[in-house]
Amino acid sequence: MKTIRALVVGYGNIGRHAVEAVQAAPDMELAGVVRRSTVLTADEARELAGVEVATDAGELGHVDVALLCGPTRSIPEVAPDYLRRGIHTVDSFDIHGEALWRLRSDLDAVGKEHGSVAVVSAGWDPGSDSVLRALLLAMAPRGLTYTNFGPGMSMGHSVVAKSKPGVVDALSMTIPVGTGLHRRMVYVELEPGADLADVSATIKEDEYFSRDETHVFAVPSIDEIKDVGHGVSMTRKGVSGVTHNQTFEFSMSINNPALTSQIMVSCARAAALRLSPGAYTMPEIAPMDLLPGDRETLIKTLV
Amino acid sequence: MKTIRALVVGYGNIGRHAVEAVQAAPDMELAGVVRRSTVLTADEARELAGVEVATDAGELGHVDVALLCGPTRSIPEVAPDYLRRGIHTVDSFDIHGEALWRLRSDLDAVGKEHGSVAVVSAGWDPGSDSVLRALLLAMAPRGLTYTNFGPGMSMGHSVVAKSKPGVVDALSMTIPVGTGLHRRMVYVELEPGADLADVSATIKEDEYFSRDETHVFAVPSIDEIKDVGHGVSMTRKGVSGVTHNQTFEFSMSINNPALTSQIMVSCARAAALRLSPGAYTMPEIAPMDLLPGDRETLIKTLV
Repeated sequence: MKTIRALVVGYGNIGRHAVEAVQAAPDMELAGVVRRSTVLTADEARELAGVEVATDAGELGHVDVALLCGPTRSIPEVAPDYLRRGIHTVDSFDIHGEALWRLRSDLDAVGKEHGSVAVVSAGWDPGSDSVLRALLLAMAPRGLTYTNFGPGMSMGHSVVAKSKPGVVDALSMTIPVGTGLHRRMVYVELEPGADLADVSATIKEDEYFSRDETHVFAVPSIDEIKDVGHGVSMTRKGVSGVTHNQTFEFSMSINNPALTSQIMVSCARAAALRLSPGAYTMPEIAPMDLLPGDRETLIKTLV
Repeated sequence: MKTIRALVVGYGNIGRHAVEAVQAAPDMELAGVVRRSTVLTADEARELAGVEVATDAGELGHVDVALLCGPTRSIPEVAPDYLRRGIHTVDSFDIHGEALWRLRSDLDAVGKEHGSVAVVSAGWDPGSDSVLRALLLAMAPRGLTYTNFGPGMSMGHSVVAKSKPGVVDALSMTIPVGTGLHRRMVYVELEPGADLADVSATIKEDEYFSRDETHVFAVPSIDEIKDVGHGVSMTRKGVSGVTHNQTFEFSMSINNPALTSQIMVSCARAAALRLSPGAYTMPEIAPMDLLPGDRETLIKTLV
């Protein structure tokens, strides 16, 4: 079995868990961590004992696949650099719709030109939830699917809230209110002198928040309220052939960065071993290609 | 958009629903129904008004894909005939493990030789449940998955119970008792003079029933209690990276033959439009390949 050399790019919430998930994978080894600075805090030095840290992948020997764990908005710029060097990429770009399609189209072209694979939006939504939505649509083509998130901390929304002027740190909770609608409860740690009303208005007009009922609260410390648990409940009721009232439900309760980075690692395997050059979203990948092990054993035990 | 010409082979429980599902698909037309005899009952003649019925596919013009709706045990013999003529096949072969792997291997060779595609075990278990098991394994590689069936009528167990001496008709209900274990509630319509204790003993010692808690009851009429609803509840609790206690649950409540035939129709689309020659189980197919419509729209709306 070929050992896949995987690189973790970025060492925030997801990057930390990605290092663990690569190390736990039976068929992978960690080529190292790429970040802006190689100066580590004491905690980071302890966590990364024995791990190569560099500011450029070129310093880390051969790399099969890079797990891009930086912010979503950095992905369109960062991914092509790796693809052009023949390094496959996996990201968890978390904006649905037009932006996702544009990223996939752009990386598809770069990947095909340079013989590399990009798996885009490898997380749980977009990601594994998207796989489920596709499967349920194949099972009951007419009907309605509702994806209900939470309760849990949205990393994407928290990062966006944190990026606003006057905000030191932020935590955005997603609260499901049923039938695919959500409330955003945003907690902010303010800079001295920052005005909550201004911060609140800035957050609420960002496109991450503008379509949902959003409430913003000031708290003394984000660290004291932070819990990265999250969840989903997805329902579909629909029609198979001409038979109505087929009902389906999926739910999960998970540590968010741990699941996201595990899914990235599974997609890195598909990128390194099984996919042709180009870009893919998760529903475009055969689920078995995400797994280690030989096909015969998987088919005999899993199917 | 190319219209896929699909053929339904066999006109029992699944075949009846497969005709409906093909007719409901926006990108398919029904080439006809193949069965042993073209002599129809009054009900069949009404249901099949306007549908070509033949004893051989050769009488029905060009056919892209054949939905094989006969008994599981007939599939290994029937499928190669179609594949050799360049007609793709989809079956819902329902025996797991070694037999499933052997069927896939055999049809893979025939398909590759003749440029045709076989999708094997396209149902819900094996089938869509297998896709889910693969996906959950990619999300939390260590841990336990339990697949709980029912409550619902098991077609396979009912057929076995009906085959015993003294039994006119039978219905075997699968009752989930949790953690992947099941109780069998078997209802039998007895021949005059048949002894329930004898029939019960014969059923309980059959390998279909001997590993499960089985209860056998005599009823005046099977027709009066028959309902083809079924269900599944699948749970997984496992580890993503090194993070424990990730929990997942999937459940559905469905009309069994309607769901099975709808899944066969969705797999027929992948076979006709998207897969290279050879044989595939469902987790080996990208879920998006099961759906009609263009990729851009699907990615923008579904992912």
